Amino acid sequence: MISKEQIATAFQDLQDQICGALEVADGLGRFREDAWQHHSGGGGRTRIIENGHIIEKGGVNFSGVWGETSDALAKQMNLAQKAEYFATGVSIVQHPVSPMMPIIHMNIRYFELSTGACWFGGGIDLTPHYVVEADARWFHQQLKNTCDQHHADYYPKFKKWADDYFFIPHRNETRGVGGIFFDYLKPKGETNNTAAEALAQSKDELFDFVLAVGQTFAPIYTHLMRQNHALPYGEAEQNWQTLRRGRYVEFNLAWDRGTKFGLETNGRTESILMSLPPVARWVYNHQTAPQSREAHTLELLKKGIDWV
Amino acid sequence: MISKEQIATAFQDLQDQICGALEVADGLGRFREDAWQHHSGGGGRTRIIENGHIIEKGGVNFSGVWGETSDALAKQMNLAQKAEYFATGVSIVQHPVSPMMPIIHMNIRYFELSTGACWFGGGIDLTPHYVVEADARWFHQQLKNTCDQHHADYYPKFKKWADDYFFIPHRNETRGVGGIFFDYLKPKGETNNTAAEALAQSKDELFDFVLAVGQTFAPIYTHLMRQNHALPYGEAEQNWQTLRRGRYVEFNLAWDRGTKFGLETNGRTESILMSLPPVARWVYNHQTAPQSREAHTLELLKKGIDWV
Repeated sequence: MISKEQIATAFQDLQDQICGALEVADGLGRFREDAWQHHSGGGGRTRIIENGHIIEKGGVNFSGVWGETSDALAKQMNLAQKAEYFATGVSIVQHPVSPMMPIIHMNIRYFELSTGACWFGGGIDLTPHYVVEADARWFHQQLKNTCDQHHADYYPKFKKWADDYFFIPHRNETRGVGGIFFDYLKPKGETNNTAAEALAQSKDELFDFVLAVGQTFAPIYTHLMRQNHALPYGEAEQNWQTLRRGRYVEFNLAWDRGTKFGLETNGRTESILMSLPPVARWVYNHQTAPQSREAHTLELLKKGIDWV
Repeated sequence: MISKEQIATAFQDLQDQICGALEVADGLGRFREDAWQHHSGGGGRTRIIENGHIIEKGGVNFSGVWGETSDALAKQMNLAQKAEYFATGVSIVQHPVSPMMPIIHMNIRYFELSTGACWFGGGIDLTPHYVVEADARWFHQQLKNTCDQHHADYYPKFKKWADDYFFIPHRNETRGVGGIFFDYLKPKGETNNTAAEALAQSKDELFDFVLAVGQTFAPIYTHLMRQNHALPYGEAEQNWQTLRRGRYVEFNLAWDRGTKFGLETNGRTESILMSLPPVARWVYNHQTAPQSREAHTLELLKKGIDWV
């Protein structure tokens, strides 16, 4: 059975592969790394790209940290007593230069407690400034292909979970066209309820799935980079892009449980907030023109659209 | 004893006075009003100024709403059972064009329950992009003058409360140079603890204080407008301004309890988020140059500075 050290090593390798693939596709931008130490044990490698040819600001972060559960952590996990934890993951957000390119996010993570409990989580979602239906269908098809190789229920369950997670209640909008999201994915026989058990596999199988999700990222995004980065746009599209980036900021700071948890548990702020865009804009009560591409995009930022 | 209707009327009059004073001082910008209805009763007058001579984006909002307490509201207030509530207030945020001008925030509010309980809250705080010590001292002196006319303990208590409230934990920075903040200010004999009772006055006296705080806003900010708006600046100062506006966004969306409460209880999003700046910027791990004015500002974004 795969160990936490092997999982962390595989995640680091994945970080290397993804950074390499993004650099090749961008052609100009290079990742720079900040290695950091966690206050209770372990640390991370934060890799940032800025002012690339296609990517304006993005991060591909690895972390592997451990220590005693804090009060906040114990509370979130419903732990009766303190325990040692180990957590490792890869987190990605990319903000492209062009408004015709989508923002993308990917995260995979593994968590283990000295009590013996362990689980995986993760997700990948796409936030186009302008929703292109063919791209959204293609994106979801790639995710479905990956999921279907591991469990027939994964794509439908995790697609719905993403709709619910990447949602901005105060705007009544999804963040983008969704994707997949999953959490507390525990090995078979270790879950507390039948719904979770129905999705469970062996630990090794779960790891294979989670790594496959991670490996799906680079082919998807580099394809979208090649296809969309050279599409023409002007000031109107750039103005819309900065407004949509404002919505991304609203989701991440006000609603994203991962960001909130990181900020509240004294995580490394600069690594957590690499998800924020280079520039965002707010206009009071902005309205899109009827029949415009912007209005069309808003109509597609809804839960429950079946893209495949 | 002053009634809730009289308080709401006085708050509306204050909104009119402040909008008038800001328009005169700006010389170009004009407030436009959106009147709105609350889903359970009452409504508001949101007044927005954009692209003024001195003010780039700002709001001076009045609301007076009532209805049955929602579950979220009942929970926040520790209410054993549902009750009717009435809430009225004035909320202001101004984002100036010039980085040499501070951002300012002011809020006063009154809350009443059908159980008989009632209280006032409010605050005013200044967020300079560049901290000018003489301005910060002058600002705090104006607040102290207002407080001292009502209760000798108000300024020291409410200044400390502002230091604690307008704080960004994940940056270990205060939002700006602080000001005053207070909440659950109840009439004499109606508080639950001696600390609160020590600050209590009659309901009419509390109203006089809260209104005086509101009336302090326009003289303070129009003075700063006249004094600072024409100071020279360039691209470097503008770049710093957009980074500091990013911090303002981080505080408001991730930590401000008023914003959070409004968004979570289905308040009017566009009125709540008028507090966000026109444009904000994020740079990974931005560092100020040693001995720079920017570094000097960061050194002064700390709790516990005695400005008067």
